[in-house]
Amino acid sequence: MALPFSNTVDRTLERLRTAFIQTARGAREAVGAPLRPDLPEDDVPRLKGRIDACLEGKGGETARRARAAELGEAYLSLSATGRRKFLLTLAHDYGLTREAAMARVEQWRNSKEAPRSLVKALEPPAVHLLREFVGVPEGVKFVVDLRAELMVLGKTDVPARTLAEDLRPLLGAWFDVGFLDLVRIDWRSSAALLEKLVAYEAVHAIRSWRDLKNRLDSDRRCFAFFHPRMPDEPLIFVEVALVNGMAGNVQRLLDAKAETSDPEHANTAIFYSISNCQRGLAGISFGNFLIKRVAEQLSRDLPNIKDFATLSPIPGLRSHIDGRLKNEGDGALTPGEIASLVPVTNNKATGAAAVRELLDKPVWWEVPAIDKALRPILTRITARYLTGTDESGRALDRVAHFHLGNGAIVERINWLADTSTNGLKQSYGLMVNYRYKLGEVEANHSAYANGRVVASREVRAMAKA
Amino acid sequence: MALPFSNTVDRTLERLRTAFIQTARGAREAVGAPLRPDLPEDDVPRLKGRIDACLEGKGGETARRARAAELGEAYLSLSATGRRKFLLTLAHDYGLTREAAMARVEQWRNSKEAPRSLVKALEPPAVHLLREFVGVPEGVKFVVDLRAELMVLGKTDVPARTLAEDLRPLLGAWFDVGFLDLVRIDWRSSAALLEKLVAYEAVHAIRSWRDLKNRLDSDRRCFAFFHPRMPDEPLIFVEVALVNGMAGNVQRLLDAKAETSDPEHANTAIFYSISNCQRGLAGISFGNFLIKRVAEQLSRDLPNIKDFATLSPIPGLRSHIDGRLKNEGDGALTPGEIASLVPVTNNKATGAAAVRELLDKPVWWEVPAIDKALRPILTRITARYLTGTDESGRALDRVAHFHLGNGAIVERINWLADTSTNGLKQSYGLMVNYRYKLGEVEANHSAYANGRVVASREVRAMAKA
Amino acid sequence: MALPFSNTVDRTLERLRTAFIQTARGAREAVGAPLRPDLPEDDVPRLKGRIDACLEGKGGETARRARAAELGEAYLSLSATGRRKFLLTLAHDYGLTREAAMARVEQWRNSKEAPRSLVKALEPPAVHLLREFVGVPEGVKFVVDLRAELMVLGKTDVPARTLAEDLRPLLGAWFDVGFLDLVRIDWRSSAALLEKLVAYEAVHAIRSWRDLKNRLDSDRRCFAFFHPRMPDEPLIFVEVALVNGMAGNVQRLLDAKAETSDPEHANTAIFYSISNCQRGLAGISFGNFLIKRVAEQLSRDLPNIKDFATLSPIPGLRSHIDGRLKNEGDGALTPGEIASLVPVTNNKATGAAAVRELLDKPVWWEVPAIDKALRPILTRITARYLTGTDESGRALDRVAHFHLGNGAIVERINWLADTSTNGLKQSYGLMVNYRYKLGEVEANHSAYANGRVVASREVRAMAKA
Amino acid sequence: MALPFSNTVDRTLERLRTAFIQTARGAREAVGAPLRPDLPEDDVPRLKGRIDACLEGKGGETARRARAAELGEAYLSLSATGRRKFLLTLAHDYGLTREAAMARVEQWRNSKEAPRSLVKALEPPAVHLLREFVGVPEGVKFVVDLRAELMVLGKTDVPARTLAEDLRPLLGAWFDVGFLDLVRIDWRSSAALLEKLVAYEAVHAIRSWRDLKNRLDSDRRCFAFFHPRMPDEPLIFVEVALVNGMAGNVQRLLDAKAETSDPEHANTAIFYSISNCQRGLAGISFGNFLIKRVAEQLSRDLPNIKDFATLSPIPGLRSHIDGRLKNEGDGALTPGEIASLVPVTNNKATGAAAVRELLDKPVWWEVPAIDKALRPILTRITARYLTGTDESGRALDRVAHFHLGNGAIVERINWLADTSTNGLKQSYGLMVNYRYKLGEVEANHSAYANGRVVASREVRAMAKA
Repeated sequence: MALPFSNTVDRTLERLRTAFIQTARGAREAVGAPLRPDLPEDDVPRLKGRIDACLEGKGGETARRARAAELGEAYLSLSATGRRKFLLTLAHDYGLTREAAMARVEQWRNSKEAPRSLVKALEPPAVHLLREFVGVPEGVKFVVDLRAELMVLGKTDVPARTLAEDLRPLLGAWFDVGFLDLVRIDWRSSAALLEKLVAYEAVHAIRSWRDLKNRLDSDRRCFAFFHPRMPDEPLIFVEVALVNGMAGNVQRLLDAKAETSDPEHANTAIFYSISNCQRGLAGISFGNFLIKRVAEQLSRDLPNIKDFATLSPIPGLRSHIDGRLKNEGDGALTPGEIASLVPVTNNKATGAAAVRELLDKPVWWEVPAIDKALRPILTRITARYLTGTDESGRALDRVAHFHLGNGAIVERINWLADTSTNGLKQSYGLMVNYRYKLGEVEANHSAYANGRVVASREVRAMAKA
Repeated sequence: MALPFSNTVDRTLERLRTAFIQTARGAREAVGAPLRPDLPEDDVPRLKGRIDACLEGKGGETARRARAAELGEAYLSLSATGRRKFLLTLAHDYGLTREAAMARVEQWRNSKEAPRSLVKALEPPAVHLLREFVGVPEGVKFVVDLRAELMVLGKTDVPARTLAEDLRPLLGAWFDVGFLDLVRIDWRSSAALLEKLVAYEAVHAIRSWRDLKNRLDSDRRCFAFFHPRMPDEPLIFVEVALVNGMAGNVQRLLDAKAETSDPEHANTAIFYSISNCQRGLAGISFGNFLIKRVAEQLSRDLPNIKDFATLSPIPGLRSHIDGRLKNEGDGALTPGEIASLVPVTNNKATGAAAVRELLDKPVWWEVPAIDKALRPILTRITARYLTGTDESGRALDRVAHFHLGNGAIVERINWLADTSTNGLKQSYGLMVNYRYKLGEVEANHSAYANGRVVASREVRAMAKA
Repeated sequence: MALPFSNTVDRTLERLRTAFIQTARGAREAVGAPLRPDLPEDDVPRLKGRIDACLEGKGGETARRARAAELGEAYLSLSATGRRKFLLTLAHDYGLTREAAMARVEQWRNSKEAPRSLVKALEPPAVHLLREFVGVPEGVKFVVDLRAELMVLGKTDVPARTLAEDLRPLLGAWFDVGFLDLVRIDWRSSAALLEKLVAYEAVHAIRSWRDLKNRLDSDRRCFAFFHPRMPDEPLIFVEVALVNGMAGNVQRLLDAKAETSDPEHANTAIFYSISNCQRGLAGISFGNFLIKRVAEQLSRDLPNIKDFATLSPIPGLRSHIDGRLKNEGDGALTPGEIASLVPVTNNKATGAAAVRELLDKPVWWEVPAIDKALRPILTRITARYLTGTDESGRALDRVAHFHLGNGAIVERINWLADTSTNGLKQSYGLMVNYRYKLGEVEANHSAYANGRVVASREVRAMAKA
Repeated sequence: MALPFSNTVDRTLERLRTAFIQTARGAREAVGAPLRPDLPEDDVPRLKGRIDACLEGKGGETARRARAAELGEAYLSLSATGRRKFLLTLAHDYGLTREAAMARVEQWRNSKEAPRSLVKALEPPAVHLLREFVGVPEGVKFVVDLRAELMVLGKTDVPARTLAEDLRPLLGAWFDVGFLDLVRIDWRSSAALLEKLVAYEAVHAIRSWRDLKNRLDSDRRCFAFFHPRMPDEPLIFVEVALVNGMAGNVQRLLDAKAETSDPEHANTAIFYSISNCQRGLAGISFGNFLIKRVAEQLSRDLPNIKDFATLSPIPGLRSHIDGRLKNEGDGALTPGEIASLVPVTNNKATGAAAVRELLDKPVWWEVPAIDKALRPILTRITARYLTGTDESGRALDRVAHFHLGNGAIVERINWLADTSTNGLKQSYGLMVNYRYKLGEVEANHSAYANGRVVASREVRAMAKA
């Protein structure tokens, strides 16, 4: 995912500064000496003076936006230390506390104003200030990245966290999915964009331009959402493989040497990677829409495609398995499973200890006996893990939660599906297919909203085993 | 300006219905029998059931938007009577009264929620419902036109007026000028778009395709704002003539037989017509931005252009003059003016009565003696009218208020500048140039904000005469 | 069809001159005083000097093209008289006579050069000169229009006719249909283009923008060919109506007040107008391709369309009928036909004379008795006319020749199908449907190439009657 | 440069076959069994039957093109052996020999036909056949690649060489520079196109995507010509560096780690690489135009750019130096040069032998004494080499011939300008700047046409030394 104001790939910081300098023309002379990079305490009053001037909103709209751009440019010219202080000033001095809100409520109660006046009064000054940036070229990206930085500060600072949270409705309105463009990405797309795919791919890293080209071949599809005011920045993208039958192994799927198949003959679309690209948009969801719109478009373009499913990682699985083995010991296993382990370890270790020992061996999955012993145990635990919920009715795995919430079902568990270092590290190599049956998505969504996880008969049987 | 859901030019109603029917697919079976066209009382509970279902927001976002589209389609299928009832139901039963708001405030005060929860709670249900339409194809245009219909109802119905008002911030956010595209319109533009210019031109009616072609010739410019989700609908457009010196006569400016001049040699851009196109966006201002952006673009494209000014109507002038003559009688004139009238009327009528009598004569302006007598009198009164303000510091003329608020100044008063029927009817043929000096716009704006109208030395002298 | 260098619609002459002046920059100083508008005899040697300099081809390609542009600009600056002299100079002094060719052939026979050298030597200097214009902006349009002017001169001047003919292969190569773009034209097309449709429509004049809009409605289609170097100029366009069943009346088809029908439900595409737009491309055929490509595209877009046919004028019919009546007298009629006329004329006139007399009456077609009497006679003669050929096997009617050559068949004769002044004048109101059965086009084409006209059973029966 | 029908980068062969199969639909049944891959002798009569059918041109134009596509597809389905036989059949049996041409000339002399009939008669049947492909999708690329294969065969087979030559005018007409589009290529261009740059770069190989990105940075420019019917295939491209002063070292120019400079401040455009992309277009020149058009465009976009020059390899230099040293011995050196070598070799070797010995040492250019001794000798010989001509007035170096023919001058010789393996191998590391002074290009071109090489004063002095 993009680091805010990242300069590594495409010089975002530089691009934003250039744009702001241009818009700020005319507002600059009023401002006096520039702030010093680390924003020492003596400079803070001058910073606040500028923010106040923006908030006062003197002059026409053009003047206001020039001042906003000028302030944005000042921010981008600071050092990391200076930017931190700038954000804390913003969050502490221009946020809206409950107390301040209470006072405004009081005032409204004593007035005869319509409710909409109160709504207006309850907008935190910092949000009001940042709202102005929508009219500044590159301003939308600026607010997105600024929120990302606020979220980092928010881990230790409450007002920063509050402000990040208060920005959510603003960004939610700007990035309403109704305003977004769905764009197909392929090998004819611009190199500048493809380079960003490489940088933003969050699930299965793209290792080279050749790997990338393979993912954009005629039997693959890639789609992204864009915002009209951030035309160079994908918001989220999904990679799809057009195959025959449910795909169960990601290395095979991504093998650049495998032959390209004819997409007209494929019957299944596998969504094997979904990556969010903008940290600052955390909490504003597009994934749901993206999958459904892409499925609709594929249905139209390739009428042979009948099944839509993911091939998904199970990021919480390994720690779940390790936890159960540790906490529950042999209780985590069935008697049959315990018995089945005996011939493999020659009784040196038994039960949960045997499982742990086997899993510690290097390349254990290439030893047929170990593979054979562990497979039923781990798939059973996985089936339970994926079909279970916590006390609030939420799926245990975050990826499962996302797809179940979208109306998908747990379709199939795949053994040795991702034997990359990362695949073994997060889920002992297991992966899962979530399936989207277009006609049943709403019903599944409702079921999950009521705490019930829908799974295929096969998975349900496994979980019960 | 476009009638909401107008079918005369481009079958908007039909287009919207078609789009909604497509989006609503899947939500239709749940809905039961269609509402009857006139929406008889027995159908209202079913309508409210549907609105409630939308507001409950069951199902994923896709399902919610399908339901919204379905409701929109139902609305568009009603008769005028039925639509009226639908809107009144929406305004009366799904608006937010001060009382209801008060209750929610109370609830919040007793909670520990953040202010943003209160903001959310204060959104009127009807606004919440209509917000959903942003994600529905053609939904944005639907909400715009619906607000236009609410405004008509609002003349006699308070909740309708309130709801129209409560929709303003929503539309203001959607139509933030930062999201709009500035587009040049010329003879290469699509006929479908040009046809709309003809329909929407509000100042000087376009009489034929030939008249239109002349207004888009090489020594003319036309620019409009568009919203990305309403690509076929201009929001506002401005027509500009590139001339030498300040233009003072609109018939000459629009003469299709006049020779085309070379835009490279022009030194002045005359904004001679600005038309808003969407009634439902009343109260959301673009004109300010449009003029400034167009001026900037012209400066860049044609560096010879040094002056930017309007040639504007003075819509309130005639009733102002008539009122003063009637109410103040001869007091409305100076002694010199009274004397000057004597030779013209041969003393049959004198003073204000003489002026009134002369203005009653057909084609009075073609009689040199009358023209000579009336010119100083009417231009003096006009200069006063345009430079004066009411007790709240607002200009007396609404067009003057618009341009002065944008930072323009009253530059020149033009005698016999518009001798069309309409020009005589609204202002006895007088027009005015408001001038935008790019470097002084902010200062002028501030002066006017403080109640002071800035005018050229010439106009000030006239006003004092 | 466009007048060459027409300035009426879009200032072609002016546009070309401007483009040439720009390209000629750098070649101008070498040229001396400009030629005088009427190109008096004393100026001809200077003109020839310039042409010779172009032909010598000194300097690089850029210099050569600048000189060509300079010469083109000189041509466009002449008066009509001067242009005539220029063209005659070109045709007489820079064409290639058989004698000159013979000499070059002799020279080649005595050399050891490859055949391609002879081909090169046989290019007339004037063609060589004009070939240079392909690299000059607007140069292609220039050569097209220049050939049109040569064709006019060629009516009385043999070398001009020869040169026009010698330019055909050059233009044929430039305008090979493989290089052309097929473009759909509708109400979203630019006004500048639509204005040209109005100007170029050759079959059924477009009377107003409303008539035009009607022809571009959702149940109509219009397609044109464009050349990449003449993007503003359609070469040929066809207008299509999507209807149910074979259309037999053009006034009904063009009725702007008729209701728009749903194109998805139409089963027949009627090509009711095909217009060539560039006189200078006479003899280079696109119509054949245009119809087939449009038929293919419609088949793809609207799978319900099963039949493709024209509704065509019969331009030579009236003079054919008049001629037969005059030359053959009663022999042009069958005894039954002669008898059938008796009750109508009360024997005042009989046979051929009766027919002529009836056709002379104003609005004869609205008199039921006359209509009834003439219909079988005229349709029979028409059927014969359309299915007959001359001694060389060519259809008698030029429109019939075009469609039969394309592989269409004579499908149906329509009585009172075009009762406009023009329709009566050229064919006593009769029209014909030529039908394109996509699978049989080749066979029909071959049949016609062998002198056999294919017609529907109905038309064949009529012809035999 | 692209291998004809190369499948390595973008599956050209496959793309062409797919396109042909589609166009050939309808012509296939007439054809009988497919040709066997190696085209054994028994299949040749069937091949000729098909070619004859194409040439007969039965059916309408659509049918003719379908047959051509069908034949093209047959060709592409053959093995290398089969394709060779196909081409030989075409060249031997469907070319036009002088004898055959003579017969046609005779026939024409005895007729009364216009010269244009003879021209038509002199078109070789094979050319006539291939001309048909312009109307077939992908047909233009097919003919280009087929000519490339003919040129290979032509090295040993005269008729193949003749046919390749006879195709030149046809391709020259299709690819007239007037029909080409000049396109800027940068990092926003499609990856599919950029990948081709990498494959086609003929001067300084592109080593990685990073190297490529650096060459498309903001202080670089890249432009290519495209043909409208080969939109995915660049014909020729040029790479330009925007720098300050004449660049004299290509490694420094291509250093990806060097800082990007501001193009607004550059005063010189260095054309450091020009690559032709299509072998089949050999003999049809675009380079001349490309350089001039790019120079014009840069002048417009970046008015600070005052100088346009190349940084060019001298491909024939090393063999020229080696030859002179070998053939002329010490006579190739001046007495002063011979003396200057003594201290370096300690007299073990002297004169030409000393030079040869020094040049044989590994990394000799890093030894200051050797560098100092060789520099004046080699630059003097280079200056002579570059300013001299052969008996026909042609420059000795082929790259020099290209730029001098375009009107450039020999501006500066650069010592140790390309120390890559390739640079040392072809020119002992020397490179040259050719300079294009826009105002003097024509004069220089003419001088060179008359056998005179224009060089800067500095180079002239060197050559005389």
